[in-house]
Amino acid sequence: MKKYLLAPGPTPVPPEVLSAMSLPIIHHRAPEFLPVLDEAKKDLQWLFQTKNDVMILVSTGTGGMVASVNNFLNPGDKALVLNGGKFGERWTKICQAFGVQVEEIKVEWGYAIDPQTVKAALDKDPSIKAVYMQASETSTGVAHDTKAIAEIVKPRANTILVVDAITAIGVFDIKTDDWGVDIVVTGSQKALMLPPGLACVSVSDKAWAMADKAKNSKFYFNLKKERENLAKNQTAFTSAVSLIIGLREALKMMKAEGLENVFGRQQRLADATRAAYKALGMELFPKQSPSNALTAVCAPAGVDGQQIYKDLRVKYGITAAGGQDHLKGKIFRIAHLGYADTFDVITAVSATEMVLKGLGHPVEFGKGVAAAQEILCKK
Amino acid sequence: MKKYLLAPGPTPVPPEVLSAMSLPIIHHRAPEFLPVLDEAKKDLQWLFQTKNDVMILVSTGTGGMVASVNNFLNPGDKALVLNGGKFGERWTKICQAFGVQVEEIKVEWGYAIDPQTVKAALDKDPSIKAVYMQASETSTGVAHDTKAIAEIVKPRANTILVVDAITAIGVFDIKTDDWGVDIVVTGSQKALMLPPGLACVSVSDKAWAMADKAKNSKFYFNLKKERENLAKNQTAFTSAVSLIIGLREALKMMKAEGLENVFGRQQRLADATRAAYKALGMELFPKQSPSNALTAVCAPAGVDGQQIYKDLRVKYGITAAGGQDHLKGKIFRIAHLGYADTFDVITAVSATEMVLKGLGHPVEFGKGVAAAQEILCKK
Repeated sequence: MKKYLLAPGPTPVPPEVLSAMSLPIIHHRAPEFLPVLDEAKKDLQWLFQTKNDVMILVSTGTGGMVASVNNFLNPGDKALVLNGGKFGERWTKICQAFGVQVEEIKVEWGYAIDPQTVKAALDKDPSIKAVYMQASETSTGVAHDTKAIAEIVKPRANTILVVDAITAIGVFDIKTDDWGVDIVVTGSQKALMLPPGLACVSVSDKAWAMADKAKNSKFYFNLKKERENLAKNQTAFTSAVSLIIGLREALKMMKAEGLENVFGRQQRLADATRAAYKALGMELFPKQSPSNALTAVCAPAGVDGQQIYKDLRVKYGITAAGGQDHLKGKIFRIAHLGYADTFDVITAVSATEMVLKGLGHPVEFGKGVAAAQEILCKK
Repeated sequence: MKKYLLAPGPTPVPPEVLSAMSLPIIHHRAPEFLPVLDEAKKDLQWLFQTKNDVMILVSTGTGGMVASVNNFLNPGDKALVLNGGKFGERWTKICQAFGVQVEEIKVEWGYAIDPQTVKAALDKDPSIKAVYMQASETSTGVAHDTKAIAEIVKPRANTILVVDAITAIGVFDIKTDDWGVDIVVTGSQKALMLPPGLACVSVSDKAWAMADKAKNSKFYFNLKKERENLAKNQTAFTSAVSLIIGLREALKMMKAEGLENVFGRQQRLADATRAAYKALGMELFPKQSPSNALTAVCAPAGVDGQQIYKDLRVKYGITAAGGQDHLKGKIFRIAHLGYADTFDVITAVSATEMVLKGLGHPVEFGKGVAAAQEILCKK
C-alpha cells in the first residue's frame, strides 16, 4: 500500500530536497559550507519577511520556544501567555520551568484569542515583559490574530511579542517587520518541507536589548552566541549540515513559487478541505478563524474520531492526526501545509468518505470531493 | 505543482527502489554483484511463473522483442503476427527487418484477436515457425487471450509462441510454463516499477531448440550467450548494475505483497478506473477484453483528447498518455500498472473531471470518483 503523510508535521519532503540532502556530508567548518548557510539564512529572512537575524538551532520547534523564553526573561519576570490549546499550554510550562511568572489569557479550545483581552491585560499590568502566543494553534486548527495583537504590543517599549509560528511561517502571511513581531519561531518539519531537526528564530532589536539583561545560564540555546556565529555563516555548535542543505533547497523552491503563490496555494487547499467536510455534513472544530495549515474536523456523532484516524492509516495508508488531550476521539486533523497540493486534499477527502462508510456512517461518495473540486479547479 | 506519473511506462519507481539504486555503483564482475543477480534472476522466474531462464538485457522492451526474432528465426522463415495495435505492428516491422516472411492477423484497434483465427492460420500453413502477439496491447488498452492462443500453439512441435508481455507481466496472470508460452518479454519501466533500461526474456526448451538453427549474425542481443553468462550470475556485456539492484528490490516488494495480491490490486484499480469513466458517461476505447494495465478512454464528442492529455499535465501535473497514430486526439490513456494504488485512480479521475469541466464539457464533479470509490473501498 502506498503511504501518504497528511499530518501537521512532520510533513512530506519534496524529492528535490531529499535528493540534495542525500549528497555526501560536508563538514560544518569547511569553506564549502559557508555559502550554503549564507544563502539559507538570507532566504529565511525573505520567508520571515524580516531584516532581523534568523538563528538556526539544531532542535525541534520546542527548542526554539525554549530559546525564546530563557534568552529574554529572568526568573520573577512576568509573561502573558495566550493559551488556546496544547501549544499555548506549552508556553506556560516553559515559562514556569524558567521561574517566569505567568499570567494566562485562556480561551476554550477551538476559539481564537480576542486581541482586546490582550490590550486589557497589558494596560492593567505594564510590568509584563513578554506576550507569548501561537500564530496557528496546531492542536485546534485555530489561527490567532497575530497582526492585531502585534499592533497592541508594538508601542509598548518594555514588552516584546513572541510568536510560535511553527505551523504559520510559509503557510500564511506573517509580516515580522511590518507588524513589529519581536520573536518568530518555526520548525523545519512543517511548511519548510524538511525532516525534523531545525528550529529557526528571528529576533528584533527590541528583543536583543532585553536579552542583554537576561541572566539565565544558557549554554545550548544561547541566541547571542548563535547570532555571533551566524554573522560568520556558522552555528555555535555542529551545524546540521544535511538539514541546512535541505533548507537551502526548500527555500529555493519556495522562492521560485513566490510567497504570494505559496500563501494562495495554502489558502486554496484549506478552503477546499473545509468545503469538502462541510459538504459531508461534518462540523469543523474551530469555532472561528481556522488556520490554513490544517483542518480539524469533528467526528460525527456516534463515530470515534480516533477510529477515523486509525482507519485512514491502516486501510488507506494515510497518516493524518487524531485529537490531543481531551479532544482525543472527538476530532481528527488533516494537514495541508508544506509540500501539499490539489490531490492531497482529494486523497484525504475521498479516503475519509470511504473510512466513514466503512464505519457504517451514511456517506454519499464523491460529495466532499466535489465540493473540494469546485475550489481546486480555480487557480 | 506536485507531479504525478500515470503513463503506461515509464511508471513511478517506489522510494525503496530509488533508495537501493542510489547506493554507490558496484562493479558488474565483482563478487558482491553475483548474489544480487542470482536473487534477481530467481525472483524473475517466480514473477514469470517459469522454470525457464529469464535473460536480462540492457535495452528497452523493444530490444527484448528484437532478440525474440533474430535469435529464433532465419531469413525466409514464416511468422504469424497478431496485430491489433501499434505494438502488434512493431512485431511485423521487426520480423521484416530480419527478412522473416510475415503473415498478419489484423484486427481493428480496440478489438482482441480471436484465438480461432490463429488456429485457422496455423492449420492452413503448418510451416509457420512462430506466432508473435501482445498479451496487453498498450496502444489500445486491449488484452489478447494469451492462454487460449497458447493452447493452440503448444501442441505444434515446430511452432513457438512469443508473447510481448511488456505491460502484462506483474499486472495479470501469465502462466508461462503451465500454458506453454515459449518466449515472454517484459521491460523494466512497467509493472517492474523500475526506470527504463532492462528487457527480460524467458525462453523455453522448445524455443532454444529453434535457436540452435538460427543463423542470423547477432552480437548484442545474443540470448544463448546471455544464457551462458546467466548461469554464472553474469551478463554478456556490462550489467546495468543499478537497475539490477533496483530489480532485486522491486521483486522483493512484489514477493512480499504476493502475486495474487498484486494481480488483485491491479484488477481493483482497473475496475475502479473503468467504472469511473463509464459513470462520467464516457466510452472506453476497448470494445472487448480491456487490459488491467491501463484504461484507454474515448474523448467525448467535441473534446480534443490531446487537449485532455495536455491539460492533465499542464494544469494538474499529471502525465498520462494520449492516443497514438490515428487515435491521436480521439483517446487518452490512464495507466494503473506497477507502483499504483487507490489514490492514483482517485487522482486521475478527479483531475479528468476538472479538466473536462475546464474545457466546457458538462461534468458532475465527484460522479466518476464516487463510482471508483465503490470499488476501491472493497478489499
